[in-house]
Amino acid sequence: MTIDIQSANQTAVARMIEARPMLKGIAAAREAIPGMRENLLLHAGPPIEWERMSGPLRGAVIGALLYEGLAKDEKKAVGMIEAGEVSFAPCHHHQTVGPMAGVTSASMAVYVIENTTHGNHAYSVLNEGYGKVLRYGAYAPEVLDKLRWMNGVMAPALKEAIAQSDGLDLRALLAEALHMGDEGHNRNKAGSLLFLKWLAPLLARTAHDSATAERVVAFIADNALSVLNPVMAACKAMADAAHGVEGSTLVTTMARNGTDFGIRVSGLGEAWFTAPAEIPDGLYFPGFSRQDANADIGDSTITETAGIGGFAMAAAPAIVTFVSGTPRDALNTTLEMYEITVAEHKHFTIPALDFRGTPTGIDIRKVVELGLLPRINTGIAHREPGVGQVGAGLVRPPLAVFEQALVAFAEEYRL
Amino acid sequence: MTIDIQSANQTAVARMIEARPMLKGIAAAREAIPGMRENLLLHAGPPIEWERMSGPLRGAVIGALLYEGLAKDEKKAVGMIEAGEVSFAPCHHHQTVGPMAGVTSASMAVYVIENTTHGNHAYSVLNEGYGKVLRYGAYAPEVLDKLRWMNGVMAPALKEAIAQSDGLDLRALLAEALHMGDEGHNRNKAGSLLFLKWLAPLLARTAHDSATAERVVAFIADNALSVLNPVMAACKAMADAAHGVEGSTLVTTMARNGTDFGIRVSGLGEAWFTAPAEIPDGLYFPGFSRQDANADIGDSTITETAGIGGFAMAAAPAIVTFVSGTPRDALNTTLEMYEITVAEHKHFTIPALDFRGTPTGIDIRKVVELGLLPRINTGIAHREPGVGQVGAGLVRPPLAVFEQALVAFAEEYRL
Repeated sequence: MTIDIQSANQTAVARMIEARPMLKGIAAAREAIPGMRENLLLHAGPPIEWERMSGPLRGAVIGALLYEGLAKDEKKAVGMIEAGEVSFAPCHHHQTVGPMAGVTSASMAVYVIENTTHGNHAYSVLNEGYGKVLRYGAYAPEVLDKLRWMNGVMAPALKEAIAQSDGLDLRALLAEALHMGDEGHNRNKAGSLLFLKWLAPLLARTAHDSATAERVVAFIADNALSVLNPVMAACKAMADAAHGVEGSTLVTTMARNGTDFGIRVSGLGEAWFTAPAEIPDGLYFPGFSRQDANADIGDSTITETAGIGGFAMAAAPAIVTFVSGTPRDALNTTLEMYEITVAEHKHFTIPALDFRGTPTGIDIRKVVELGLLPRINTGIAHREPGVGQVGAGLVRPPLAVFEQALVAFAEEYRL
Repeated sequence: MTIDIQSANQTAVARMIEARPMLKGIAAAREAIPGMRENLLLHAGPPIEWERMSGPLRGAVIGALLYEGLAKDEKKAVGMIEAGEVSFAPCHHHQTVGPMAGVTSASMAVYVIENTTHGNHAYSVLNEGYGKVLRYGAYAPEVLDKLRWMNGVMAPALKEAIAQSDGLDLRALLAEALHMGDEGHNRNKAGSLLFLKWLAPLLARTAHDSATAERVVAFIADNALSVLNPVMAACKAMADAAHGVEGSTLVTTMARNGTDFGIRVSGLGEAWFTAPAEIPDGLYFPGFSRQDANADIGDSTITETAGIGGFAMAAAPAIVTFVSGTPRDALNTTLEMYEITVAEHKHFTIPALDFRGTPTGIDIRKVVELGLLPRINTGIAHREPGVGQVGAGLVRPPLAVFEQALVAFAEEYRL
């Protein structure tokens, strides 16, 4: 079989780069996400059964069942799961992405992103901010109270505010944030402020009372990860646009469920290639160490998949105070990623590299040939459910997933 | 006379660096600024009489007289001035700084900054945003209407909002903005968003109606120079703290009135050393060229005086798209400024230089000895009154002002 892989990859990466993800609204997951239903929980990473789920994912699953009122306590929640009354599926199977555990349930509000170039949609829940949060597997009463306020008060306020607008161009926002010291994955300080800049006047206009307006504006303003979830969904919309190109070896998904790291490839349909996820290297919060760390978890690697995050670290030298290393390492990380990618992004540029485009579109052939793995910035979750974040750092996927994918590609295309 | 200049400079620069300027409130110039009165107009730069004022400064003076209702039209305004009914003084003589023409009149609202380390205060009017604005010498009816709205509606709203707070730490804001691609003079994108982040929840709480809240929040949000004026006043408070140290050759003022460039020196009291201001080199807006440019104007060089602006360009590689040059030039600009300064800032650091402190505290001896002049980022005004901004670029002070100051220093201290 004769296939022009290079040309297929150029087609795929051009679709990724030309995708224009716009934030269009807020809706309940059950209304917006295709296939979403009451007893289905979406989670980060490749498919996984309850038995193999790590602590933080289990915690978030229990928390979501409590939040939805499907179970009254932890014991009942586990009982339901063991009785097979709860279905699980990757967020990625439903055009959705979620940070860390990524658990998304039917009544949660999600950002609705539309790629206006190609028409596909993507979704992500609202970011919970810091401290004890569901995405790190916490499910104490205050975690659920915050989720109730976010979904019951903040989401309707945001929905009304966004409805007054023509939508927010998240590609333009990211392009600007990369000129303001963000890399779009672990550092979203500037992006979150640009998000606030857009939202605050809309919220001031539509707010029903000043106390709610203040609380919602403050919640967005005080969370330097506010924009992470819409950014992830934007990257998902870009990556999905590049998926399904016959003969392409481009990676269109990288995701972790806390146990396995999985990738999918543009020319290989819905197949996942998985291997055990690594423990990230990084800086731990006081009182925690590598012994406390869960394996790599979350869909947020969709950012690196789309050419930002670890791939754009040269744009964000200040991030090293958070994830370890030196500004020189940050620069080198980006330079290294040009080796395994097929394009330089047209819209995402790095001032410190003379406005060179970010390395975009991972080619599984280059990864395997060079033995050079994608660099990922990440938060680090505690291995036990209910504890939360213990640090932040750097990680790479297991080489095995790229090797498996390359073997599958050779078989699929009879090379 | 034996003086220890080095030790005096260390004392002065330590005071500059340890100063902690907090935004404490908003007040009318006549209430807040010492010595402010009805028929006094403050202006940028060293002292100057009407006859020698450049176009943009004249335009702003006329505009302020119209705005105050002291004159009914341009002709009456000029008549008043020529009859000696209007007094002029540098902003700097009244603990005040203003961008470009810097004209400040009695009823204008000013930010009140307090240096909580040493107790001194500084002031600056509200930033008008883009387009036709008084600070570039425009005084058309829409310019005055905007000033009326800013001072009549926005200022009271900001005053009430700020009164709900403990004040804003502008040194901390600048430190963060330098990690987000700002240099604090020509690029204040991140700083203005950090300002919005602080203000928006306060405004949401105190706003009397949602239309005003929306308009004020949007005005701050849409102006990437919103924070420039409080930042300038913060730098003034830092520089003033370093002024008056016996035996110090540290520059504590650099300012331009559109005709002359003037400096003052810590150990030389209130004396100004002046020489003709240069025309900046830079990028012009479409339809304009160097022929349209006025000479360098504004008090905003207080930023370079305090160790940011052009001195921190390495933190802001994206600025070159606005002021000309390459990211490498931006890096080199900061490296060059270490040659003529006496300290590295403790709070203002540059990630790309491994978090090295910005070059801070210009020593007139080093400038003259090396023949190496401070680098300044600046906006460029049209030479005619009423036109406005025509570009942005880079400029240096005339060497003569440093030579004069050094001669005066030698005389003063009988060296």
